[in-house]
Amino acid sequence: MKASELAAVLGGTLEGDDVEIVACAGLDEARKGDLSFCKDPRHVKAVQSTKASAVLLPPDWSDGAPCPVIRVADPNHACMAAAKIFAPPEPVREPGIHPTALVDKSAAIGAGVHVGAFAVIEKGAVVGDGAVIEAQTFIGENCKVGERTHIYPQVTLREGTIVGSDCILHCGVRLGGDGYGFNTTVEPGSPLPKIEKIPQLGIVEIGDGVEIGSNTTIDRARIGRTYIGPMTKIDNLVQVGHNVKVKGYSGLIAQSGIAGSTEIGYGCLVWAQAGISGHIKIADGVQVGPQAGVPQSLDGSVKYVIGAPAEPMKDFGGRLLLPKMVAKLKAEVKELKERLAALKK
Amino acid sequence: MKASELAAVLGGTLEGDDVEIVACAGLDEARKGDLSFCKDPRHVKAVQSTKASAVLLPPDWSDGAPCPVIRVADPNHACMAAAKIFAPPEPVREPGIHPTALVDKSAAIGAGVHVGAFAVIEKGAVVGDGAVIEAQTFIGENCKVGERTHIYPQVTLREGTIVGSDCILHCGVRLGGDGYGFNTTVEPGSPLPKIEKIPQLGIVEIGDGVEIGSNTTIDRARIGRTYIGPMTKIDNLVQVGHNVKVKGYSGLIAQSGIAGSTEIGYGCLVWAQAGISGHIKIADGVQVGPQAGVPQSLDGSVKYVIGAPAEPMKDFGGRLLLPKMVAKLKAEVKELKERLAALKK
Amino acid sequence: MKASELAAVLGGTLEGDDVEIVACAGLDEARKGDLSFCKDPRHVKAVQSTKASAVLLPPDWSDGAPCPVIRVADPNHACMAAAKIFAPPEPVREPGIHPTALVDKSAAIGAGVHVGAFAVIEKGAVVGDGAVIEAQTFIGENCKVGERTHIYPQVTLREGTIVGSDCILHCGVRLGGDGYGFNTTVEPGSPLPKIEKIPQLGIVEIGDGVEIGSNTTIDRARIGRTYIGPMTKIDNLVQVGHNVKVKGYSGLIAQSGIAGSTEIGYGCLVWAQAGISGHIKIADGVQVGPQAGVPQSLDGSVKYVIGAPAEPMKDFGGRLLLPKMVAKLKAEVKELKERLAALKK
Repeated sequence: MKASELAAVLGGTLEGDDVEIVACAGLDEARKGDLSFCKDPRHVKAVQSTKASAVLLPPDWSDGAPCPVIRVADPNHACMAAAKIFAPPEPVREPGIHPTALVDKSAAIGAGVHVGAFAVIEKGAVVGDGAVIEAQTFIGENCKVGERTHIYPQVTLREGTIVGSDCILHCGVRLGGDGYGFNTTVEPGSPLPKIEKIPQLGIVEIGDGVEIGSNTTIDRARIGRTYIGPMTKIDNLVQVGHNVKVKGYSGLIAQSGIAGSTEIGYGCLVWAQAGISGHIKIADGVQVGPQAGVPQSLDGSVKYVIGAPAEPMKDFGGRLLLPKMVAKLKAEVKELKERLAALKK
Repeated sequence: MKASELAAVLGGTLEGDDVEIVACAGLDEARKGDLSFCKDPRHVKAVQSTKASAVLLPPDWSDGAPCPVIRVADPNHACMAAAKIFAPPEPVREPGIHPTALVDKSAAIGAGVHVGAFAVIEKGAVVGDGAVIEAQTFIGENCKVGERTHIYPQVTLREGTIVGSDCILHCGVRLGGDGYGFNTTVEPGSPLPKIEKIPQLGIVEIGDGVEIGSNTTIDRARIGRTYIGPMTKIDNLVQVGHNVKVKGYSGLIAQSGIAGSTEIGYGCLVWAQAGISGHIKIADGVQVGPQAGVPQSLDGSVKYVIGAPAEPMKDFGGRLLLPKMVAKLKAEVKELKERLAALKK
Repeated sequence: MKASELAAVLGGTLEGDDVEIVACAGLDEARKGDLSFCKDPRHVKAVQSTKASAVLLPPDWSDGAPCPVIRVADPNHACMAAAKIFAPPEPVREPGIHPTALVDKSAAIGAGVHVGAFAVIEKGAVVGDGAVIEAQTFIGENCKVGERTHIYPQVTLREGTIVGSDCILHCGVRLGGDGYGFNTTVEPGSPLPKIEKIPQLGIVEIGDGVEIGSNTTIDRARIGRTYIGPMTKIDNLVQVGHNVKVKGYSGLIAQSGIAGSTEIGYGCLVWAQAGISGHIKIADGVQVGPQAGVPQSLDGSVKYVIGAPAEPMKDFGGRLLLPKMVAKLKAEVKELKERLAALKK
């Protein structure tokens, strides 16, 4: 698309050559053919060094640019609009069951549902109106998928899993796998223990508006439900153990893990690679920092914890200062010794 | 199911309304329709605040409950029995090969084997009697799957992988992917190195009775075998590098990782998110704590390590006390200075 | 294969019984039927305790072995050659589209391409000459896959993803899932926030010669591209956030994670389970140690960092010595007190 056409669409004015634009990108990552944007004079250096073919700038920008400029009232907003133009078109998933999909005749498929190629929907499953079940997905027996929920390719829902309405499950999500539960008993006279699987008889239940990232795993309860409350947003490669309860409106960032039977309150945020022990409670609104390890319940009196074991930011920061403090103490003790020695003479 | 029917089935006595029960759940997570249980008077508060519709309690419980009670001799046991009643029925995987499955004619499929829809079993593969290969699974050339082993949907076994008898592989397990091995050489006169793939010529071999959690990955050996010994239980999202040897009867908890060529003894437990370096040995019976990082071999003289780098619990605990110790020392040094200054006057 | 035949093939000399050899393995993991190797006299103990059926040793080895020996000039090299003989044969993926694969008629499939069973290739996709798309893989609309790229079973490429030439994508790789992006606004008068999804309009672009391990996830950009530069080697279960840019020739080891919009320079190495924060830059050639957490940009003045927050090895090592230093200080302060007290008398 010509920069001039784009300027017209975005309600802006082109200054400079009418270059060809094929995509949008940030100032740093932009290359030939890209449109970038800046609204903040503090980023003038990034503008000056960008390799974008054109850049969206506000009317009052006076620091120039190394490429044609499209002046617009709100560069951020205009770039989002342009990004939508260049975005790969979202695939249309027409209502209907692909001829290769296997849908058990006892499954209840709602109106306007899309079921993709090689999908398997087993007996007793219920899929709500307008849901999209993409290719190669597996919906086990007696699962329930809510209205307008979108399940991307190659997701598996083991038997009995319940997913709410308006959810998004990304590729490779695994719901309802057996929780990790074994009884280990020492055998008299044997060097090796006896290890027996504890039946995992519960289910996974996902509330409305939940999004779950690629390859995330959520285990079925031993008894009852592993529960992810409404509007919870889970990133990629997250592990949620059996009988965990996430009340809702929380975020679990990439590669974090919640061990069995733990409860996460409303509006919590668990940052990337953090781990939370089993059988504890995290109060509403608490944030657990990246790579933190939480061994015991957090009552909400501290809103942000970090470190392993997790502690308030102040304590964590103090711990980081220890080497300096110890070096200073060492020097002071040395000096005291010398003074004391001098005194004795 | 009516509480009275349930009481009859469980050999207990109902006290209170004959409510409808639809599921089991722990005291905290229970909601309307749930049956919960308690055997320990210390949890009296949890009983009093439960939202369960009925609760299983022992004969001598005298602290009351906010809902109908079913008295039974062993509430734990009774709840497990009830959970089995309410559990989603385990899908029956009838012997036979689904008409959509592709089984190479040279593959040897045992008696009573189930092969699900869209599964692919390649040439030379051997599947033992009574094994279950669920839908959309991929069994590569010359793989061997033992008797009664259950492979859930969307597992992949690359060529030559051997899985023992009575194993369970959960959804998304990846066995036999190439190990991470590259030769990097600096090119004279070039700013960029030459990076060459080292052929990964070995296999993965899994012993009998092993369970592997969802989306866990185990790489094939560079030469020889990556070996997971009998009765080892692996959780979700675990990474096992090439040429790792887990002797057996060990547990690897969620998101832990074992780097290449490391040996894990019998009866070890690697807790969640722990990492173990390559080319080392962990002695029999050692436990590696959550998020621990183990840089060198552990000879078993210490049975539990934690921290990164991993150390005995005593040392790890001592490290946590450092801020207090340093603050105390600081105060003492200050006081010493003052006393010394006073002395001089 | 008889040891004598093997000796002939490898140009070596057999000493001892003409045993049957079925595989290769390292000295420690070897068992009956295995050929092992050693070139370094320092490993004499490992040779003496090996359970291999035969061992490759150099001409000048004089420490004996508990099994038949094949003398060769270069045992390492000979063992690689033997490993190739015993390796499971690499499956041949003949050119052609499997009759069960679904390839949209608008997709452009190059010469000599293999498309496996139950694969789905959607409209507008382009697959270069000689590429291998294995069974049950999903290639979304308008994706591009370069020449000779090998995609193993059960990979998903969401719409618009671009993969270069000579790449290898292992089983379960997820490219182009939505990045984690939400706007959270506090609702006046409501205890719960409003959480809105930020459209993820960009793509993932993978350069030439990139290898990506099993179950690794790389998210599409919010705007523009998440970019993995040429010759980058990514291990299993790695998470790469939206708009990350890896310039090229770098390694990301298992279970590491790179948060959104971060840039990784040329020739970097991110070790296992390390985490790198969003919106920062890691200079060319920097190594991030295992389990490290990098909260801010690294300008390359330090070539290796470790710990969380990450610091130079010297500082990290110093921190480990703190308990000893504090104990020593404590003793010294105690002594000073005593001396001071004695002085006063």
